[in-house]
Amino acid sequence: MASSTTTSEDALRRALAERQAAVDAQAEAVRALKAAGAAAAKAEVDASVEALKALKVEAGAAARRLQAAVGAGGGGAAREEMRQAVVNTLERKLFYIPSFKIYRGVAGLYDYGPPGCAVKANVLAFWRQHFVLEENMLEVDCPCVTPEVVLKASGHVEKFTDLMVKDEKTGTCYRADHLLKDHCKEKLEKDLTLSPEKAAELKHVLAVLDDLSADELGAKIKEYGIVAPDTKNPLSDPYPFNLMFQTSIGPTGLNVGYMRPETAQGIFVNFKDLYYYNGQKLPFAAAQIGQAFRNEISPRQGLLRVREFTLAEIEHFVDPEDKSHPKFVDVADLEFLMFPRELQLSGESAKLVKLGEAVSKGTVNNETLGYFIGRVYLFLTRLGIDKNRLRFRQHLPNEMAHYAADCWDAEIECSYGWIECVGIADRSAYDLRAHSDKSGVPLVAHEKFSKPREVEKLVIVPSKKDLGLAFKGNQKMVVEALEAMREKEAMDMKAALESKGETNFQVCTLGKDVVITKKMVSISMEKKLEHQRVFTPSVIEPSFGIGRIIYCLFEHSFYTRPSKSEEEQLNVFRFPPIVAPIKCTVFPLVKNQEFDDAAKVIDKALTTAGISHIIDTTAISIGRRYARTDEIGVPFAVTVDSATSVTIRERDSKEQIRVGIDEVASVVKQLTDGQSTWADVSFKYPSHIGPQGDQE
Amino acid sequence: MASSTTTSEDALRRALAERQAAVDAQAEAVRALKAAGAAAAKAEVDASVEALKALKVEAGAAARRLQAAVGAGGGGAAREEMRQAVVNTLERKLFYIPSFKIYRGVAGLYDYGPPGCAVKANVLAFWRQHFVLEENMLEVDCPCVTPEVVLKASGHVEKFTDLMVKDEKTGTCYRADHLLKDHCKEKLEKDLTLSPEKAAELKHVLAVLDDLSADELGAKIKEYGIVAPDTKNPLSDPYPFNLMFQTSIGPTGLNVGYMRPETAQGIFVNFKDLYYYNGQKLPFAAAQIGQAFRNEISPRQGLLRVREFTLAEIEHFVDPEDKSHPKFVDVADLEFLMFPRELQLSGESAKLVKLGEAVSKGTVNNETLGYFIGRVYLFLTRLGIDKNRLRFRQHLPNEMAHYAADCWDAEIECSYGWIECVGIADRSAYDLRAHSDKSGVPLVAHEKFSKPREVEKLVIVPSKKDLGLAFKGNQKMVVEALEAMREKEAMDMKAALESKGETNFQVCTLGKDVVITKKMVSISMEKKLEHQRVFTPSVIEPSFGIGRIIYCLFEHSFYTRPSKSEEEQLNVFRFPPIVAPIKCTVFPLVKNQEFDDAAKVIDKALTTAGISHIIDTTAISIGRRYARTDEIGVPFAVTVDSATSVTIRERDSKEQIRVGIDEVASVVKQLTDGQSTWADVSFKYPSHIGPQGDQE
Repeated sequence: MASSTTTSEDALRRALAERQAAVDAQAEAVRALKAAGAAAAKAEVDASVEALKALKVEAGAAARRLQAAVGAGGGGAAREEMRQAVVNTLERKLFYIPSFKIYRGVAGLYDYGPPGCAVKANVLAFWRQHFVLEENMLEVDCPCVTPEVVLKASGHVEKFTDLMVKDEKTGTCYRADHLLKDHCKEKLEKDLTLSPEKAAELKHVLAVLDDLSADELGAKIKEYGIVAPDTKNPLSDPYPFNLMFQTSIGPTGLNVGYMRPETAQGIFVNFKDLYYYNGQKLPFAAAQIGQAFRNEISPRQGLLRVREFTLAEIEHFVDPEDKSHPKFVDVADLEFLMFPRELQLSGESAKLVKLGEAVSKGTVNNETLGYFIGRVYLFLTRLGIDKNRLRFRQHLPNEMAHYAADCWDAEIECSYGWIECVGIADRSAYDLRAHSDKSGVPLVAHEKFSKPREVEKLVIVPSKKDLGLAFKGNQKMVVEALEAMREKEAMDMKAALESKGETNFQVCTLGKDVVITKKMVSISMEKKLEHQRVFTPSVIEPSFGIGRIIYCLFEHSFYTRPSKSEEEQLNVFRFPPIVAPIKCTVFPLVKNQEFDDAAKVIDKALTTAGISHIIDTTAISIGRRYARTDEIGVPFAVTVDSATSVTIRERDSKEQIRVGIDEVASVVKQLTDGQSTWADVSFKYPSHIGPQGDQE
Repeated sequence: MASSTTTSEDALRRALAERQAAVDAQAEAVRALKAAGAAAAKAEVDASVEALKALKVEAGAAARRLQAAVGAGGGGAAREEMRQAVVNTLERKLFYIPSFKIYRGVAGLYDYGPPGCAVKANVLAFWRQHFVLEENMLEVDCPCVTPEVVLKASGHVEKFTDLMVKDEKTGTCYRADHLLKDHCKEKLEKDLTLSPEKAAELKHVLAVLDDLSADELGAKIKEYGIVAPDTKNPLSDPYPFNLMFQTSIGPTGLNVGYMRPETAQGIFVNFKDLYYYNGQKLPFAAAQIGQAFRNEISPRQGLLRVREFTLAEIEHFVDPEDKSHPKFVDVADLEFLMFPRELQLSGESAKLVKLGEAVSKGTVNNETLGYFIGRVYLFLTRLGIDKNRLRFRQHLPNEMAHYAADCWDAEIECSYGWIECVGIADRSAYDLRAHSDKSGVPLVAHEKFSKPREVEKLVIVPSKKDLGLAFKGNQKMVVEALEAMREKEAMDMKAALESKGETNFQVCTLGKDVVITKKMVSISMEKKLEHQRVFTPSVIEPSFGIGRIIYCLFEHSFYTRPSKSEEEQLNVFRFPPIVAPIKCTVFPLVKNQEFDDAAKVIDKALTTAGISHIIDTTAISIGRRYARTDEIGVPFAVTVDSATSVTIRERDSKEQIRVGIDEVASVVKQLTDGQSTWADVSFKYPSHIGPQGDQE
């Protein structure tokens, strides 16, 4: 289960609020300049070209300052402005569309429009190449509709909840923690009369928000007098709301089903078959890409918190006694921002750490976990995520499930703060054990010994009769606690019983200590011959929120630049070719038969080569046509300006080369496949500084 | 909405039952031979190699006869046997896994295991290349969770139902038409006392099964004394059961949602944005690949009728006044099996028809519909669907929605009969109009005239006062019927009124004729200047059931052959390289460091080239290793038998060539990309008839 991002986000949001004053003046200046630019644009037809040029320079400078502010993790206002610019472009160019818009939409549901859909397909194709293919993973594809028994075993039916409060009069629902969070933040930001003690208390509440029980949350809401934000009506007590979409399988209405909240369970229930498919060898990994669903109480954060999303999950099954990884050496030298527990608890920031050192020092629990952290880093940065705004944050003890050995989130910084986009967890044997218990089907691995081994085994035999006499109704819990002792604890007890005849023993399920006497339990180490070892594998789970990665990628790829011959700022997405929704555009420079025919030849060659492209034959200036494709991040533009050769222009440098018509498709293919870089082809082909370059 | 396949399937099943007697003897012989083969296999350890070889020859011949019988549309028993062989292989090799198997599964839900998942990914990638990329379609990706209003507009809330009956004592649910169908078929097949009149009646019931209302179905069930098949209890009357999975969006429980039954609605509701994105030009097509859901009452037909499936749908929007297609010429010469209405009604079979002729003669309604039929044919046959078991069947008038202009299904013959795998429908303006009406947002296209046009427009002005006096409460229906008249009908009325003063007029909504007099309505043609034409586009919808196509592909690709050195029959899938889940395997011939190192070099080169492959270093014979990969349809096997060169073996011909180690990846890439054929590379590289070939 992916945990919420609230803790780190909050920390960042608080820091941002504090720094906001410092950049307010600057943001104000930016707004003024922007307003000036907008007014000028309206006067466009009357104003002289000279006046416009001057304004454009001003606006360009302002935009650069804006971007610099945002790039440096600048203030809230600049971030909001940056986000608006990106989101406006994304919605205008149909990267995203609010779903069912003509019916006024549904909160938390978004469509990918044509360029967004292509980006998503490209990201998933690269994910398959980078993980499934390169690591020989076993990919599976399971249904979204899931019967209740599976999600009872996984714990989702019981625990996949958020605490909710209702407006007692209108019935409107709110997330209890959101209301408390908003209250504390508003007080801290706006209440000038706040005492230092009160401020410290509110900050503490924000810090522990995720750990509050329903009762504690309810008490705080009462104490602070928080009411429904829309109506000021009183609120109900908080109660858990299950976030799964429920449905019914088959016509009887008796079989409860849910839309899966993650894809992982489909892999766990198939462990046995997959293990046999893999020749009964460990380690191996299974992977799944698919839709997951989460019926959020009140979705916020736009595209980052949605009710339906694509997950790509890997379950790497490994012998718990050997978590080394043969390919760890390939990633050991990578150095990137890591944010281990100690740095978080001491209030420091993430630091550049070499992955090999993080594993050898034990910061990262084991090589396999480390290997996946390295592979995730490579995956994200190759997609175009800025490595300076990417960090790996270790879960704090209170964030991590009790069974987890270690857990790291790849967090990407965007205008909403640091967002958890990939979780990489060593979940030990928890999931397989849970499904073994519920289904009665052993989900285990075998290690056959080449010759039988003599092993010492701990044997604990509680005397149920004596325990029953002593503990009556609690007997069962004491027996279970005794049987669950590890070797060290058991041998200590044996020694104590032998020397003193009795000993204190903590029974967690009773919440107290009991006195165990010698006759209540026999403890010994016995020698046995074993022919094989049977064990439940550990699972290491990298889980990717594809939509979140894509959104952060959009923010990291976005920039603006002034145009040479146009008046407005131009938006650009600097997608690497593997991500770009369309790899190249083809423009006949002017409308004539010869150029159109050449464009058709190129069109056909690009299609055959499987390169997504568009032909733009509209009669507008070449500069405008370039701008139009820059705005959806097309990396290469082919301009047909003769019947035999064409120019290819690279989006970010705006450099152009000249290439023969019959070579266009293969050059673009090399560039988009990653076989050649722009530098390679610039070296090979003559550069072009022609009329269409000047028009830009 | 995809319609059911029942009609054609029934027809085929009846035909098969009649032909069964003819092939019974042959099937019996096959079974006897198979039984002999099985008995021998049990005695394997004792029997001499000679004896086994003899049996193998016999079994091989029997298998070939079996396949020939199935290939020729042979009897039911042979089909069942063939299906069992395919399905066993598919489940054993994890192409499919019944979902949640360790919890005893859920009817109608299947997982794709590793090779199945790869096949599906390959089919979808080819679909994107063949349709989206080559036709420049606008791909979108919308959520599965859909609010009720959208599916009310589309008609699914009201009409997406099957008729269900319940066991009155246990509550078990059945599809009413299935029970009636099973009853009729069993009577026809097994009741030797059946009179010719009764047989004719039962055949008639089967033929009209899809058209029966709930009352008619209920009456037949009563008349025939049909009871619950499992308990013999009486059954309830049939009533409609909606096949959508229902859920609730958000926490209040007040917003009903459904899991989408098709992906098309997501496109229709986005029409306006997509039309603008396309520069307000028609025609254009949008496409979507995604999950769809159908809560079947009692899923049968294994992998063909499931509760969750992947659809790939295209909505091609076109001016209803111009359904020509510029690329129709590219497909006009294709010739394949077509099964137009007339042939079905006259009891004939599908015939080879040239697509160009089918359109020019009007058998296919228009060029655009014809173009898509041609493109679907190319798509399916390139995937490996046998063109002799693929036909395009036109919907009969009673199958087609009233608004549809024409509708053809691509049906593929498999062991279940002829299965509808792609529907290609001209749905006219129905869907866009439905969403315009419900949402109030006009979903229309504009054609701007270069200069205003003078048009004659029919103006009908009913006199509500006079009509009200004459028809009282029926006035509204008469007014609507008058206003809905087309030009011809209106001008005829005008003439009649002018000559005779009154005329009879049929009002469908009243179910009778009324008399209209001259003063009740004024009819005239008036001239107007128009600057543009505003119209609702027609939509042509090719809709692909990806799971069904894949299942049929598995059956069409499957064959068995005897091995040279092994005893059993070998299973092979003859997938074309684009479909094959794994493109090549690499086998070091024997275990030694030199060969292992060479295999590693090849492994790396294949990974870099993005070719999915496996390395098989198990110490079993090369023949067995070939057999293992044939069984999952790997087209090429690379055997490392020296440190400098290797052999590449083609799966179906079993031919081998010798290639240098550094060339392996590029040769396999050419072969799997479709740039080279096996014939091409066989010509270029020396052929190899070495020891590993003999071992097979």
